[in-house]
Amino acid sequence: MTPQRVSLITLGVADLAASKAFYAALGWVEHGSQPGVAFYQMQGQVLSLFGIAALAEDQGRKGADLGRGAVTLAQCFATEAEVDAAFALALASGAKALKSPEKVFWGGYSGYYADPDGHVWEVAFNPFWTLSDTGAVTM
Amino acid sequence: MTPQRVSLITLGVADLAASKAFYAALGWVEHGSQPGVAFYQMQGQVLSLFGIAALAEDQGRKGADLGRGAVTLAQCFATEAEVDAAFALALASGAKALKSPEKVFWGGYSGYYADPDGHVWEVAFNPFWTLSDTGAVTM
Repeated sequence: MTPQRVSLITLGVADLAASKAFYAALGWVEHGSQPGVAFYQMQGQVLSLFGIAALAEDQGRKGADLGRGAVTLAQCFATEAEVDAAFALALASGAKALKSPEKVFWGGYSGYYADPDGHVWEVAFNPFWTLSDTGAVTM
Repeated sequence: MTPQRVSLITLGVADLAASKAFYAALGWVEHGSQPGVAFYQMQGQVLSLFGIAALAEDQGRKGADLGRGAVTLAQCFATEAEVDAAFALALASGAKALKSPEKVFWGGYSGYYADPDGHVWEVAFNPFWTLSDTGAVTM
């Protein structure tokens, strides 16, 4: 069996400088970035931004047209007000609004935006999950 | 600023039963799944499988054709042998091989496969990052 974990999330981006500027505007701080790739230390995990053509080649399918959107990366917050603030900051940073935060059918509060490359982020308050002080989520 | 974390990764899937069977074949155990959505507890984080049409609607763009591939979800392992074993298990479970594990330019060892929906997973050994006993990654 394989461990139930994701160690690194890599987003393919069209313009690395523009993408780095967007995440910097959200307040994210790079660490250990290399030429052509930006890294961000997360909660026991790493996010990276990498050129979309280089990503296709790295995936073993040089020249492929990689599609966006079928993966959502969600951030949980402790309150609805924190969700609203995160959503507002994303729009102010250049994100495209997909759905403004609202109460949703499963009992939480959630909104969606797309980053400069169309990668989809959800910002949510989930009253049924435990969010630790350090940001770990437990069902 | 927003916290540097991803709480939940949601993969849009065409056939939830088929997708659940694939992840079960990898050894992943569901926890807290609901009708129409499967959940897996990870390292302070959750993975979910959700119908692709429902995901588009949830994202605020009902009917949209969501593309796959521009996000890579990578799993780090402690040795090259563990990478080989994870890759072999994925293929035996029905994954499509994109790139067999090999030594790569950045000094590690990595392979890629696609799940039944074309979501891209990387299996890798990275000698420059610290992998804790519980699976946390630190740069």
